[in-house]
Amino acid sequence: MPKTMYKLDLSKPMEEQIHPGHNRWHPDIPAAFSVDPGTAFRMECQDWTDGQIKNNDTPNDIRDVNLARVHVLSGPVYVNGVEPGDLLVVDILDIGTFQEYEWGFNGIFAKENGGSFLTDHYPEAAKSIWDFEGIYTTSRHVPGVKFAGVIHPGLIGVAPSLELLQKWNERENELKMTDPDRVPALANTPNPEAAVLGTLKGAEFDRVAKEGARTVPPRENGGNCDIKNLSKGSRIYFPVFVKGAKLSVGDLHFSQGDGEITFCGGIEMAGWIDLKVDVIKGGMEKYKIKENPVFKPGPVDPLYSDFLVFEGISVDEKDGKQHYLDANIAYKRACLNAIEYLKTLGYTGEQAYMLLSTAPVEGRINGIVDIPNACCTVAIPTQIFDKDIMPK
Amino acid sequence: MPKTMYKLDLSKPMEEQIHPGHNRWHPDIPAAFSVDPGTAFRMECQDWTDGQIKNNDTPNDIRDVNLARVHVLSGPVYVNGVEPGDLLVVDILDIGTFQEYEWGFNGIFAKENGGSFLTDHYPEAAKSIWDFEGIYTTSRHVPGVKFAGVIHPGLIGVAPSLELLQKWNERENELKMTDPDRVPALANTPNPEAAVLGTLKGAEFDRVAKEGARTVPPRENGGNCDIKNLSKGSRIYFPVFVKGAKLSVGDLHFSQGDGEITFCGGIEMAGWIDLKVDVIKGGMEKYKIKENPVFKPGPVDPLYSDFLVFEGISVDEKDGKQHYLDANIAYKRACLNAIEYLKTLGYTGEQAYMLLSTAPVEGRINGIVDIPNACCTVAIPTQIFDKDIMPK
Amino acid sequence: MPKTMYKLDLSKPMEEQIHPGHNRWHPDIPAAFSVDPGTAFRMECQDWTDGQIKNNDTPNDIRDVNLARVHVLSGPVYVNGVEPGDLLVVDILDIGTFQEYEWGFNGIFAKENGGSFLTDHYPEAAKSIWDFEGIYTTSRHVPGVKFAGVIHPGLIGVAPSLELLQKWNERENELKMTDPDRVPALANTPNPEAAVLGTLKGAEFDRVAKEGARTVPPRENGGNCDIKNLSKGSRIYFPVFVKGAKLSVGDLHFSQGDGEITFCGGIEMAGWIDLKVDVIKGGMEKYKIKENPVFKPGPVDPLYSDFLVFEGISVDEKDGKQHYLDANIAYKRACLNAIEYLKTLGYTGEQAYMLLSTAPVEGRINGIVDIPNACCTVAIPTQIFDKDIMPK
Amino acid sequence: MPKTMYKLDLSKPMEEQIHPGHNRWHPDIPAAFSVDPGTAFRMECQDWTDGQIKNNDTPNDIRDVNLARVHVLSGPVYVNGVEPGDLLVVDILDIGTFQEYEWGFNGIFAKENGGSFLTDHYPEAAKSIWDFEGIYTTSRHVPGVKFAGVIHPGLIGVAPSLELLQKWNERENELKMTDPDRVPALANTPNPEAAVLGTLKGAEFDRVAKEGARTVPPRENGGNCDIKNLSKGSRIYFPVFVKGAKLSVGDLHFSQGDGEITFCGGIEMAGWIDLKVDVIKGGMEKYKIKENPVFKPGPVDPLYSDFLVFEGISVDEKDGKQHYLDANIAYKRACLNAIEYLKTLGYTGEQAYMLLSTAPVEGRINGIVDIPNACCTVAIPTQIFDKDIMPK
Ligand SMILES: [Zn+2]
Ligand SMILES: [Zn+2]
Ligand SMILES: [Zn+2]
Ligand SMILES: [Zn+2]
Ligand SMILES: [Zn+2]
Ligand SMILES: [Zn+2]
Ligand SMILES: [Zn+2]
Ligand SMILES: [Zn+2]
Repeated sequence: MPKTMYKLDLSKPMEEQIHPGHNRWHPDIPAAFSVDPGTAFRMECQDWTDGQIKNNDTPNDIRDVNLARVHVLSGPVYVNGVEPGDLLVVDILDIGTFQEYEWGFNGIFAKENGGSFLTDHYPEAAKSIWDFEGIYTTSRHVPGVKFAGVIHPGLIGVAPSLELLQKWNERENELKMTDPDRVPALANTPNPEAAVLGTLKGAEFDRVAKEGARTVPPRENGGNCDIKNLSKGSRIYFPVFVKGAKLSVGDLHFSQGDGEITFCGGIEMAGWIDLKVDVIKGGMEKYKIKENPVFKPGPVDPLYSDFLVFEGISVDEKDGKQHYLDANIAYKRACLNAIEYLKTLGYTGEQAYMLLSTAPVEGRINGIVDIPNACCTVAIPTQIFDKDIMPK
Repeated sequence: MPKTMYKLDLSKPMEEQIHPGHNRWHPDIPAAFSVDPGTAFRMECQDWTDGQIKNNDTPNDIRDVNLARVHVLSGPVYVNGVEPGDLLVVDILDIGTFQEYEWGFNGIFAKENGGSFLTDHYPEAAKSIWDFEGIYTTSRHVPGVKFAGVIHPGLIGVAPSLELLQKWNERENELKMTDPDRVPALANTPNPEAAVLGTLKGAEFDRVAKEGARTVPPRENGGNCDIKNLSKGSRIYFPVFVKGAKLSVGDLHFSQGDGEITFCGGIEMAGWIDLKVDVIKGGMEKYKIKENPVFKPGPVDPLYSDFLVFEGISVDEKDGKQHYLDANIAYKRACLNAIEYLKTLGYTGEQAYMLLSTAPVEGRINGIVDIPNACCTVAIPTQIFDKDIMPK
Repeated sequence: MPKTMYKLDLSKPMEEQIHPGHNRWHPDIPAAFSVDPGTAFRMECQDWTDGQIKNNDTPNDIRDVNLARVHVLSGPVYVNGVEPGDLLVVDILDIGTFQEYEWGFNGIFAKENGGSFLTDHYPEAAKSIWDFEGIYTTSRHVPGVKFAGVIHPGLIGVAPSLELLQKWNERENELKMTDPDRVPALANTPNPEAAVLGTLKGAEFDRVAKEGARTVPPRENGGNCDIKNLSKGSRIYFPVFVKGAKLSVGDLHFSQGDGEITFCGGIEMAGWIDLKVDVIKGGMEKYKIKENPVFKPGPVDPLYSDFLVFEGISVDEKDGKQHYLDANIAYKRACLNAIEYLKTLGYTGEQAYMLLSTAPVEGRINGIVDIPNACCTVAIPTQIFDKDIMPK
Repeated sequence: MPKTMYKLDLSKPMEEQIHPGHNRWHPDIPAAFSVDPGTAFRMECQDWTDGQIKNNDTPNDIRDVNLARVHVLSGPVYVNGVEPGDLLVVDILDIGTFQEYEWGFNGIFAKENGGSFLTDHYPEAAKSIWDFEGIYTTSRHVPGVKFAGVIHPGLIGVAPSLELLQKWNERENELKMTDPDRVPALANTPNPEAAVLGTLKGAEFDRVAKEGARTVPPRENGGNCDIKNLSKGSRIYFPVFVKGAKLSVGDLHFSQGDGEITFCGGIEMAGWIDLKVDVIKGGMEKYKIKENPVFKPGPVDPLYSDFLVFEGISVDEKDGKQHYLDANIAYKRACLNAIEYLKTLGYTGEQAYMLLSTAPVEGRINGIVDIPNACCTVAIPTQIFDKDIMPK
């Protein structure tokens, strides 16, 4: 096993760790350690909320979560010899859980604190705990299903340059200002509350806390992409914006459905990840990988081959209004259709919703040009159920 | 082989066929034939443009296509004993091509006549011809790739009730009226030009032509969903809105990438399709399949397992503006990123664009809740190329 | 579709066809037609018994089959410019059935006339008819299962040189002579009875009939390999032994289980096959493909991913005798174990036996070195059954 | 993670462990621990040779291995309430390696000490060391390949009853006596040398050592089946022959090719395995699972989908002699054909041989009835090579 280069005490919050991680993106957050290209190493990760959610049957911790704290990350790792313009090649060698932490959680955020994809339909907080047994997971809160996880980091990314950071802050602030009082906010701009910034202290801490971008959204640096197939055996090519690349990782998921629609999230867990880094010098220009990372998924995702698929189109379900080729609405309709179907099997709406956010369901953009309706689908693997779910 | 119940002469346009098909949705279009539940039958289909595009090297026919004519459909089929409230179960048994028509086309529509997903980047008409050899296709216009088709009907649907039709026309007209002069139009409302309405004639023809919804968008009845995995061996459950269900089909694709992003389209072809129909009485209510069809994909899609995946986020590529969780922009960025990469392999932008619209690429909604950025991906099977396309 | 270069009238036996095929291997059987490398073409094929088995419910035709007639082949095809020492590259583009012949058969041969892998357990003739519906098949004689076929030619091969033919005849005769009266025979040496030899006539016919090797076994030239994954989209590399290679094909199977254990056989059918030929000059030496063909399977086999697997070891089931690393006995035991299990689901032994020979079951050699027991397995896809077959 | 119920010190041989395991099958070997049905637990395992093979570049340890010591097993586990006639249900939850032991070995045994499937062609000892990086492995001794392991226990089984044990000893002795001086032996009958028998001591040890069957072959109790797909997520149904079932496990493989043809073996490793046990009361009779275990493979094997396949027939490669439907010879020929091909890529014969025994190659029995030739194939995943290996 690769050497553990980043170690945590899960009983403590991030800022009390020997090497505190970070929950903001900023080029000036000091590296936790450095490695040469070609090195494999292990990093331990807190769950994305920094341990706020407990293995019990009440959703109150979901309801009351402090979202200023998310997502806490492990790192950054400084990769020697890597410079802006290079591609950082990252292999996800393996991911696992801790013996004392063989479970994960999923939750629906309350509309007033986080919200979710279907928050207008499911505005109340809910929670499900998922137990792990080897490659499989089950939940006492969503009975009748068992599936193999596609374990992956929801969030992995490199540090932005100051220039790129500034661009992020500007464009997100501009969006936020179009409706500054909206709940949930259109964007979460820099906020010093609950910031964790590695070993920074004093004035430097205050400056970076005021400038650092939230770790919630995915951006040019990768970040919180929540791509369920970025699993064991995957190789990622990151554009590099700062010296050493400064790679960070967190938000481990035992499994997630495409879209991570409940927002909280996949099956969220603490755990460890084994990474190996390498570099392609000058690769950003050579391969035109400049805007976002590119990756090759690993070969060991579960072999589910039997799906029941729900379609949706871009007509608003509440007022029947026609939208123009809107994939969000189409996917929302597909998910709502799936939930209505799952309810005929005996699930509550909340259970069905959490199932779509945790099981390896596939969310597709099928038709995005057939004016005026986009068509999206959500595909549910039938083999995860303990009974036949087909219409008869 | 099932008996051919709907036969075409491909050298003639739809209205000159013995049983003319239709290119509008309307409950009053007479059935071409009727069958009992449990029956398998073959239907022949013209390509979606009714033969306007030719196997040659000029894109002029794409540029000048008459879109008032699309999509021409075969049918409708009246299924005996089926009534509103039932589910019509349709098995796609097989799909094939005609000996004299062993090719298909893909095209980028010009911005002024149809447009496409990336029309601001690729406003000029382009065309690629794809030759079929058994399960494989290649194109003289997009060299270096060969892939197995996931053959499917881009469009299959049942007739709307008058009430449902009215709802469609109202909501689409309302959208159109928000920007009535837009090119391309926000929606295409009923238009008697180039209408084909089966055997209707005279005043009845005129009435239906004036009321009939365009066949371009997918809707509650299925229709032009352009779902690439609705291929051989699939079973679809349609909500039924009129007596006999009145099933129609067309727009056959030898293959299509998720999104069908060039709009024209997948690999468009004429061909035949073998269907089998059955009924679940009262199934709409029982299974809550009321808003859109549900389906189970067939088991014989190509086993491509090695992908290179491109990410995109919801920041506009032209002005850098941040959009709120917008899957359309995120998927657009993913596609543009893929095209830039493919250009480093020697393809023109247009070739790369048409490749994304024809090869079995997978378009995913990965994260749709990480405020403010949606994350979408487009995954390209690497095994379709005649060389190694990975970054090195 | 490729041009049909070899056409049959299925109502007539092979020797009455315009171009009679052949049921013996001999270099002097004249080519039915010739093509250039790079050409695609269609050939029609009679079922392997030349039409002896009928779509009815009696196994008498299986019991009384004339095995001197099998396997009748279409061809040979002379490929211009191909010479001994080359590799003949054959692409299997597509395979299909005839409208009037949408069914196939499987049978257990009687011990006295053909026998089978489990002939000591199932010595009586039996038959099952399998109906095709698109990619799927079902049988009125083996209820409760439906599966997608992995359609393939059981037999495809090139002509032997005279020298190679002589080697075959010698080694097979030597084996036969070790127990000349055995039933079934240890080997079937040349036998003029029921020979079909293309257009040969008179003395030349008599000579070749006396020398020609039976088409039953697989050999260096390919031949009756009965490899179920040699399906649509596969590419085969044949060593070439005579000028023009002289490729022949037949014994089409809609589906077959590994081992083809009932001998008759897979789901045997008449049909057509589209092939494309090419050449690698001098390839036999360059790639050391000299002893047997090599191939790359196509990418569209059914995606069955859920199996129930039965093990067997090399201890004789009748007398309990230990055999040394004997894969035949181990596979026999695995099959017998599977049959006993399937009988608990309500099947007769004969039904279960025919199911193993027709469905896409996988037969593996798992351990072949663990002295003294070989371990083999037979894996049955659970998704082909209309109920849950797992132990509970 | 399940509680570790069986712990090892890898620096010591089995008999010096706190709970010594065993390397003979006998009902009287005391259980190492007991669990209730429904319990998950972890067991640690020594490699099958009990640590005789080292991570270095000389094959001398392979050459000189003491085979009287193999296979050392962890256990047995007594499962409370389980009785003869029941089925023991075993879930393989997870398998992994130790931090200090991130490598495995493969070797070709010398003809005089163990031999192998192709021992007449490769009589000398050879060794390859395989390093693990997450899900992948590579070898400095077999360059140019990298693959994802299908990690599994080569050996897992329950204790025989005294009666069954006696049957084994009799039938194996009878075979051995047909050629008592053969090298390697036809069977390895009980041999007290190097026996490890758990906590047994004194006269009881001596008795059991004299009676206990070797753990090398697979038998009715499962045992050394070397089934590469019995990997993570699999469920096995064992017939039960003694009270408590007495389950043992060992011979962990990071990966193995079908047949394990070099005999030593797959990629052999020490490691841990998480199991969960349950029972189906009276299941042996109900499901007729009496002769051998039955299993359902897990869903996370690597998604290799592109294979190059080599055929072989049952003609002896040395003397050209025809054998009757002999799968062993056919598979041997297929493997030899594959090796000759791999040599054209630059591998030595020994490297190619070890690659076939370690990579996830599939060994099939394709045709076992086409008198007189069996046809077997070995399929090599092309995606494991760092270059294109197809003939051109
Ligand atoms: Zn996330
Ligand atoms: Zn998450
Ligand atoms: Zn379409
Ligand atoms: Zn189309
Ligand atoms: Zn055959
Ligand atoms: Zn056959
Ligand atoms: Zn073993
Ligand atoms: Zn082993």
